Amino acid sequence: MTNHAIDAQRLLGRIRELGEIGRDGESRLVRLAASDSEKHGRDRLVAWLQEVGLALAVDRIGNIFGIWTPEGAADSAPLMLGSHIDTVINAGIYDGCYGVLAGLEVIETLKAEGFQPARPIVVAAFTNEEGVRYAPDMMGSLVYAGGLGIDEALATIGTDCTRLGEELGRIGYAGAEEPGFLKPFAYIELHVEQGPVLEREGISVGAVESVQGISWQKVTIAGDANHAGTTPMSMRRDAGHAAARAVTFLRERANASNTPMVATVGCMAFEPNAINVIPSRAIFTVDLRDPDEERLQAEEAALAAFLDQLAKDEQVDIAVERLARFEPVRFDAKIVERIETAARNRGLSCRRMTSGAGHDAQMIARIAPAAMVFVPSIGGISHNPKEFTSDRDLISGANVLLDVVRSLVGPRAMGRG
Amino acid sequence: MTNHAIDAQRLLGRIRELGEIGRDGESRLVRLAASDSEKHGRDRLVAWLQEVGLALAVDRIGNIFGIWTPEGAADSAPLMLGSHIDTVINAGIYDGCYGVLAGLEVIETLKAEGFQPARPIVVAAFTNEEGVRYAPDMMGSLVYAGGLGIDEALATIGTDCTRLGEELGRIGYAGAEEPGFLKPFAYIELHVEQGPVLEREGISVGAVESVQGISWQKVTIAGDANHAGTTPMSMRRDAGHAAARAVTFLRERANASNTPMVATVGCMAFEPNAINVIPSRAIFTVDLRDPDEERLQAEEAALAAFLDQLAKDEQVDIAVERLARFEPVRFDAKIVERIETAARNRGLSCRRMTSGAGHDAQMIARIAPAAMVFVPSIGGISHNPKEFTSDRDLISGANVLLDVVRSLVGPRAMGRG
Repeated sequence: MTNHAIDAQRLLGRIRELGEIGRDGESRLVRLAASDSEKHGRDRLVAWLQEVGLALAVDRIGNIFGIWTPEGAADSAPLMLGSHIDTVINAGIYDGCYGVLAGLEVIETLKAEGFQPARPIVVAAFTNEEGVRYAPDMMGSLVYAGGLGIDEALATIGTDCTRLGEELGRIGYAGAEEPGFLKPFAYIELHVEQGPVLEREGISVGAVESVQGISWQKVTIAGDANHAGTTPMSMRRDAGHAAARAVTFLRERANASNTPMVATVGCMAFEPNAINVIPSRAIFTVDLRDPDEERLQAEEAALAAFLDQLAKDEQVDIAVERLARFEPVRFDAKIVERIETAARNRGLSCRRMTSGAGHDAQMIARIAPAAMVFVPSIGGISHNPKEFTSDRDLISGANVLLDVVRSLVGPRAMGRG
Repeated sequence: MTNHAIDAQRLLGRIRELGEIGRDGESRLVRLAASDSEKHGRDRLVAWLQEVGLALAVDRIGNIFGIWTPEGAADSAPLMLGSHIDTVINAGIYDGCYGVLAGLEVIETLKAEGFQPARPIVVAAFTNEEGVRYAPDMMGSLVYAGGLGIDEALATIGTDCTRLGEELGRIGYAGAEEPGFLKPFAYIELHVEQGPVLEREGISVGAVESVQGISWQKVTIAGDANHAGTTPMSMRRDAGHAAARAVTFLRERANASNTPMVATVGCMAFEPNAINVIPSRAIFTVDLRDPDEERLQAEEAALAAFLDQLAKDEQVDIAVERLARFEPVRFDAKIVERIETAARNRGLSCRRMTSGAGHDAQMIARIAPAAMVFVPSIGGISHNPKEFTSDRDLISGANVLLDVVRSLVGPRAMGRG
């Protein structure tokens, strides 16, 4: 039964073709949500969905759905596969696109072999997963799952001062369906790991059982701008030094932890940022992640206590703004088991794991049993043109998805399987 | 004898009038070297020099000189007073201008009272002391003292891509004199402290006996940009964290020191500077200052050793670029004594001190005995519209300068003193 396989060349060809759509003048892949270049990617995807004979639907937040409703299955909740096709600036070609195109590939393979699923199968491409142009990220799936109101989402102002709703209309992807119009029976997302664990351990398939909780904060430290030459050390209120102490605190705490907790300071700015002026302001971001909500809260509390003490020690004022907060998500244990079984049956090594990155699956998990399949990312590199997964791993992952889909949706009693 | 005093209202009026020249649309004082707004300041100064009956000279680097040559004294080396009238962006009105206008005021006072100096007295306004538009700072005095070639200086490209030589010509201040054409007998610069020491100690006059040595370096740390959520702490090469460790190292070392050494990290930039990406690069500046050259070298060596170890510990690459380096300057002990005596005779409190900031005097000290007089800066604030020195202190400082000049240059035997 599992000798059926997806059409590897067709899948790889589509990944590469989509990966050429949205190149800028420096040949960087830049397909930001609801931009002209993303419109071209969407148009290409829609053409493929229609070539495969799927019914097309677009909802108000621009999520695209290709729907296969086998005869007699129209009343059943659909199995949904998917991911996203928007990218970061100077992206690789796999992130998101792999999951969408593999979902399409699975449907096309099943259709071609005359498989009769017990329920509809849908492939979805969610709007604005990356969140580069419009915040928050994972927006399309968040709206779809009811976590953010559609009107609020459409009113979002982007980094280029555009309004998302207007941009979706402009590119022709402000659809008519209400988000959430199809309530999935289950949701499965295939994705590149974007981390180094699978490659480092020589494992082909990750059965993703959870997504880390994410806490994003912006910290602003205010001191006094004074002359670097004339102000004795004892009279300084140095916002930059206080910020540096916070950075080292976070790192030392994470290093000392035996948990999978990670802590990152990715953004940092000093003001006035002059070589001979003590910084009056330092603004930095804190990205804390942990698969365990209780531990994540403990880390947030530890940082808050440290900053309180730091403000006293360094005579600075510290303000903290919460930018984003998602609790850890546990995926559906039964689907995770099916992924493990499918990998085993194909002779592929597999491990359970946590996703370090956020994905649309964590949003759809609010309204349906969900899980994810990961394949190795060489060097753990992602959001980068060097993002790479071997063809063999891409094909393996898609075949695991095929088998899990098959196991979840049939074949129906009247089918031939 | 010391009952003679400068004309306080004339001096204060000129300081305020010059302080209104070069206001931008937001009413910020911005009189960058060789700009249109600085031309207006220069024109105003030149008019005053001529009103006082001084001979005007401008050298090739745009330094302006007002020369009082009493009868029979043309062959003697002149006593030079001065500072600069260029400003930083959003400056206060005292920095530099006070020294130039007080020099003019002293000459005008001496002329008015019929004083017959034994040698010429010159007031100088040096080009581009601030170094905001063209690097290095203290350029006009450095060129004047022979520390930088005139052609190299004129070829300097500014932050706005202009060439200094062309800009000086454009504003009409590319003079004919060779820099250094007048070799001073001595040089005295009156300046606001730009630091908090005099105010904190309640002292009216600083007799500046030295200028700190300055070491400016740019440090670039290169690590790996990786996903903040998926990269385990143990696999990170975090340039931002390494930079933070260097910042705290410098501060802890300076705090622990019993010397006047100061260390500042004023500029910091992370790349790619994204909340969910581990910084691949961190670029920061280090400003080290110490009045003792040996100690300054020891601090530089300690930082270099720390960065070597840091590169190993954090698996990052570190490059260090030297941006500027000036050895500490010791001023002329006899002039410093005269400043102390003059203050004492006027009943003003006085302390010897080191200048934390760089000044034209340190350049002219290469070619002549030199010293500086400081007056208190409230809160130590400078390079800021809040820069403030009380009228009383401004007047006291100018009178001390008057007395020191008198003690240095006569009166001649044939004079009336």
